[in-house]
Amino acid sequence: MQGFQRTPRLEGGEADAKRAEILGYFLATFDRYEQLFETLSCEEAYFVKPISLRHPLIFYLGHTATFFVNKLVLAGLLHERINAEFESAFAVGVDEMSWDDLDDAHYQWPAVSEVMAYRNQVREVVGQLIQSAPLALPIGWDHPWWAILMGIEHERIHLETSSVLIRQHEIRFVQPHPAWQPCRKCGTAPQNHLVKIPAGKVLSGKERSSPVYGWDNEYGRHEASLPDFEASLYLVSNQEYSGFVEQGGYAADEYWEAEGLAWKAYSQAEHPTFWIRNNDGWHLRLMTEIVAMPWDWPVEVNYHEAGAFCNWMKAVTGKPVRLPTEDEWYRLYDFCNLEEIEPDKIAAANIHLDHYASSCPVNEFRQGELFDVTGNVWQWTGTPIYPYAGFEVHPLYDDFTTPTFDGRHNLIKGGSWISCGDEAEKSARYAFRRHFFQHAGFRYVAGEDAASQPVSNYETDRMLSEYAEFHYGDSYFGVANFPKALADIAISAMGSRTARRALDLGCATGRATFELARHFDHVTGIDFSARFIGMGAEMARQGMLRYTLTDEGSLVSYKSRSLKELDLDAVRDRVDFFQGDACNLKPLFNGYDLILAANLIDRLYSPAKFLSEVHERLNMGGILLISSPYTWLAEHTKREEWIGGFKKDAENFTTLDGLKELLAPHFKLMQAPLDVPFVIRETRRKFQHSISEVTLWERIA
Amino acid sequence: MQGFQRTPRLEGGEADAKRAEILGYFLATFDRYEQLFETLSCEEAYFVKPISLRHPLIFYLGHTATFFVNKLVLAGLLHERINAEFESAFAVGVDEMSWDDLDDAHYQWPAVSEVMAYRNQVREVVGQLIQSAPLALPIGWDHPWWAILMGIEHERIHLETSSVLIRQHEIRFVQPHPAWQPCRKCGTAPQNHLVKIPAGKVLSGKERSSPVYGWDNEYGRHEASLPDFEASLYLVSNQEYSGFVEQGGYAADEYWEAEGLAWKAYSQAEHPTFWIRNNDGWHLRLMTEIVAMPWDWPVEVNYHEAGAFCNWMKAVTGKPVRLPTEDEWYRLYDFCNLEEIEPDKIAAANIHLDHYASSCPVNEFRQGELFDVTGNVWQWTGTPIYPYAGFEVHPLYDDFTTPTFDGRHNLIKGGSWISCGDEAEKSARYAFRRHFFQHAGFRYVAGEDAASQPVSNYETDRMLSEYAEFHYGDSYFGVANFPKALADIAISAMGSRTARRALDLGCATGRATFELARHFDHVTGIDFSARFIGMGAEMARQGMLRYTLTDEGSLVSYKSRSLKELDLDAVRDRVDFFQGDACNLKPLFNGYDLILAANLIDRLYSPAKFLSEVHERLNMGGILLISSPYTWLAEHTKREEWIGGFKKDAENFTTLDGLKELLAPHFKLMQAPLDVPFVIRETRRKFQHSISEVTLWERIA
Repeated sequence: MQGFQRTPRLEGGEADAKRAEILGYFLATFDRYEQLFETLSCEEAYFVKPISLRHPLIFYLGHTATFFVNKLVLAGLLHERINAEFESAFAVGVDEMSWDDLDDAHYQWPAVSEVMAYRNQVREVVGQLIQSAPLALPIGWDHPWWAILMGIEHERIHLETSSVLIRQHEIRFVQPHPAWQPCRKCGTAPQNHLVKIPAGKVLSGKERSSPVYGWDNEYGRHEASLPDFEASLYLVSNQEYSGFVEQGGYAADEYWEAEGLAWKAYSQAEHPTFWIRNNDGWHLRLMTEIVAMPWDWPVEVNYHEAGAFCNWMKAVTGKPVRLPTEDEWYRLYDFCNLEEIEPDKIAAANIHLDHYASSCPVNEFRQGELFDVTGNVWQWTGTPIYPYAGFEVHPLYDDFTTPTFDGRHNLIKGGSWISCGDEAEKSARYAFRRHFFQHAGFRYVAGEDAASQPVSNYETDRMLSEYAEFHYGDSYFGVANFPKALADIAISAMGSRTARRALDLGCATGRATFELARHFDHVTGIDFSARFIGMGAEMARQGMLRYTLTDEGSLVSYKSRSLKELDLDAVRDRVDFFQGDACNLKPLFNGYDLILAANLIDRLYSPAKFLSEVHERLNMGGILLISSPYTWLAEHTKREEWIGGFKKDAENFTTLDGLKELLAPHFKLMQAPLDVPFVIRETRRKFQHSISEVTLWERIA
Repeated sequence: MQGFQRTPRLEGGEADAKRAEILGYFLATFDRYEQLFETLSCEEAYFVKPISLRHPLIFYLGHTATFFVNKLVLAGLLHERINAEFESAFAVGVDEMSWDDLDDAHYQWPAVSEVMAYRNQVREVVGQLIQSAPLALPIGWDHPWWAILMGIEHERIHLETSSVLIRQHEIRFVQPHPAWQPCRKCGTAPQNHLVKIPAGKVLSGKERSSPVYGWDNEYGRHEASLPDFEASLYLVSNQEYSGFVEQGGYAADEYWEAEGLAWKAYSQAEHPTFWIRNNDGWHLRLMTEIVAMPWDWPVEVNYHEAGAFCNWMKAVTGKPVRLPTEDEWYRLYDFCNLEEIEPDKIAAANIHLDHYASSCPVNEFRQGELFDVTGNVWQWTGTPIYPYAGFEVHPLYDDFTTPTFDGRHNLIKGGSWISCGDEAEKSARYAFRRHFFQHAGFRYVAGEDAASQPVSNYETDRMLSEYAEFHYGDSYFGVANFPKALADIAISAMGSRTARRALDLGCATGRATFELARHFDHVTGIDFSARFIGMGAEMARQGMLRYTLTDEGSLVSYKSRSLKELDLDAVRDRVDFFQGDACNLKPLFNGYDLILAANLIDRLYSPAKFLSEVHERLNMGGILLISSPYTWLAEHTKREEWIGGFKKDAENFTTLDGLKELLAPHFKLMQAPLDVPFVIRETRRKFQHSISEVTLWERIA
């Protein structure tokens, strides 16, 4: 076949053959990308922005070349820059993934010929590298050549996103091209209807050992059991969607979510963005031309429009119509017995440029019992992108996905007519802001409400992240995990005492709450900060926390920890978390066998009040564990509320003296105080290193 | 003899005999103290304050008993309080040493009979303890019995200070007492004149092995060489002083120092405080009576009045008259061949209550070639109290002296008629605020200006103290001293290079400056903070730094470090310190063989400016050592001035990347970066623990 070369398998075989295959893949991609720009009609077309929030196309012409240089330098395969000035200008545009606002600096772009000359230099250098750099197979995630594959797959992404920009350019700036011919078939759309999909399990996530390139977000493991549901036979066609448009769907706010309403108010949209109405009726803007509306092609809309259509349809039909989840898309894939496209056969889908440089009728590609599960246009899902268990960022591109784990980027699945390489794989996971346009449409489903998606954002608040690391993260300076150490001391002190209920007061992000639940039937974590307990509660609910760690300046790294890794998965159901004030606790928090007060007393506004009342919460014979570095600060505890750490009656009166005095009426000190160190990481090079004093008190009165 | 028992020798001999001696010393002191209060004429006399800034005498009656209890508890000799309520009320009055303002709370004092009953309980307990507590001789500074001696000597101090308060009480509140009879001798004063004192050395400071009790400030070692000077034969008598009074000395502001003027304006003093002028002319207030002015007794004044007299006399005589220094007092002591008073002989001085309950004529006690070098009244010196080298606080009484090391408390020497026990020793060093009254007068000297006294205060500013400890103090968590480690790395990198001049830029309190001077002919320390370099300069000048360390809350410990201890005494003359801005350094700082920039770059407002110009200061082939934990904070360095620690052209750009870029034109990186940890102590239990990255750069262009 003469199809566009597939993403290579990176395992086994002969190194020289692999070199040749990768060189071919590189050159095919580099060439095809340049060929895309031949659809621009003039030099000016490179420099006028197709849409206001993006760079002009000249940037994207240079960008994919610069990306190679940057990643090859990072990977240590390249030791010198090719053109430092270009490589600064072409490095950062608008991140198509995150849709940050564009910095409107006045760019002085080089001429097209200069950029093409630069591309030729890069082509030469990368080509030489592929032919000469040491190569041991297989090429995996940690392999230096991963950077080469990353550069090629990155260019394939831009092949698609640049084609969208070209489609958004003024028509005068584009021209038809023999290599970019759209489908010419069109007609009346077939009647769509719902097909029953039986209940089933789906398993997604790529294994690290997979023999093809993948982006960070594809790896890990995710399983789900789905009840039965129904899915539309076809993607929604322009014709089917026109019912919504004609019946005033864009004006009917009740069909739109709040975020969609905001977008609609801003954009003043009254129909899909590529639809054009003129005297002859509806037309459709393709990449290089405007054609009479192909009613049987899939409609291309953003998430908000797709969702509003579903709501309208739900209202009209009375059926629970909505967008599918990512899991449901995988269920359709399995239900239709689909497989990856093959390297040497034309795909049985409008994908990978195997057929057209445009969409085609929704009934052209039957795939099992449905049409277009893959290909034609991407399909919006109701699922904001989230990391699978086991997710890790790739060190060569640590902000490829992480900024999109924010609940505001929804996954699109299935690929479009121009999705190539990794994009065409089953495992591909791309996500965009919900108001954004790609070659993307949708299929609707009907079924019970989808399970709510896990919270997937990385905590970026500095203090919360520091505490997440303090409780669930790594050890530093050889100092053992502090909340666990305290829980172990408490459990050991409990001996054979009754251990029904424990209270972790000032639990912060909750590690000790979980650790105590190894021994107690139930443990309650309480903290004054709702944001702290939010993290504990999230850990209990999802079994996982994600957070960023400050490395240096504004550089961060991404981290996640699971209860499973900490061997705490089994106790998830034995903890709960509440917001509360240790100095004014609700009466219901009562009858505990153990109260842990870790690094609490020197943060209370009235530690004496707490200490003189805490026995009321504790069963007779129960244990109170207090730990503190006795860091009294007026910002937390007014000077007159300190319980020690000052001269009293002319002599030193320590906090331990104060504890003894305040607790004497109801407690006896069980053993000599212990020193337990703890370390809180602030940056890669800066830590708080403290030594807490731990005292154990038995309630005797 | 029947004199008042001397302070015991604490060495050798038989334990039971020593018990008996100490018991006798305790009882004699306890009795004599109570007997002093018999000079009060009525119950009311105990409860009306003699002077507004002090507690009434009832407090002092209880206080010396409570002090025993507090110190014996601290020492572990006593395990229970005798009367917790009294021991709180009588613990803190006004510290006679520090003259803090009195907290005017409304005290509810117990009745005299209650306090006496309490004293009897304490007498019983302490007496029993002395008879039964284990006793191994000798009793030294660390011996538990030190607390017993401390209690007795403390009461002897209060015997004197309470006698002053009684002397300041309204005359209706006092009554003569057979055990407190003043001297009845008086007459015309002898003509005073200056006696030549030949040049000589003095050695002061008590050894730790000394066999008698001493307060913390007496220990250590101090040597001085004095040029010849003159000293007055007699203490200044009332008669001699009257010349100053009669000639308008109190109105003549030119004789008074600024602080003295302020006191004079506040007090409206026109003559010495115990002088009373009535219709019969001048009289003198004694402890229990008012007598016709004994003109030949020593005048009693505060430091300001004594100093003003000297200035007046200087003006009148043209001679360089002034107050003696502490060293000069010791020179007089040696010059007159004096020795400690003996245990079983009446003293040859009006001291230790051996003669009178008042002063006596200035010509009654000849001591070698002078009169009254010891005894009669204390003698003001021009020396603010300071610690001798080797000073340590006693753990049972850590704020006895330290608060007076503030340059505002001047030493009085020689003792008065009521100075007993330790107070009567040659080594005794008491110091009071300069406006304060004791049984104190003065002797004047004439000679060249006294050498300025060492700065003696303990640095209490938290950040300066933390840095003093960071640079000169202890190691924590096994982390080696950081400035020394950097200096060692720099010196090792220098190899056999020329090592004439080094620059320690951002030197803070200067440890690395000293350490580099082991290898370089001269080292300049520069810091933006004048207070930081002040500490380095003080260390260079005095060879010693003193500072407080926060232990817990407001509790502190006192610390000192000397260059000698750090084996740096030999390089004191090879360093100097300047205030300066690393980003805008004066041209004269130039021509260095090494520049050390320790933890500097992330505290500059423009690190790029510094880094692009620093080569100008360095000789070709010289070395630049940069260390930093790269803790970029907007409060020090605006975000746009950071040289790394951010994404640049889409990739992580570390501070090391920034250093390489900025230094490339003039430097080559000599070796791979090193990690060097450092620890800054905040409290006994809280530390900053960081890891600095160290890079070495050789100037090549």
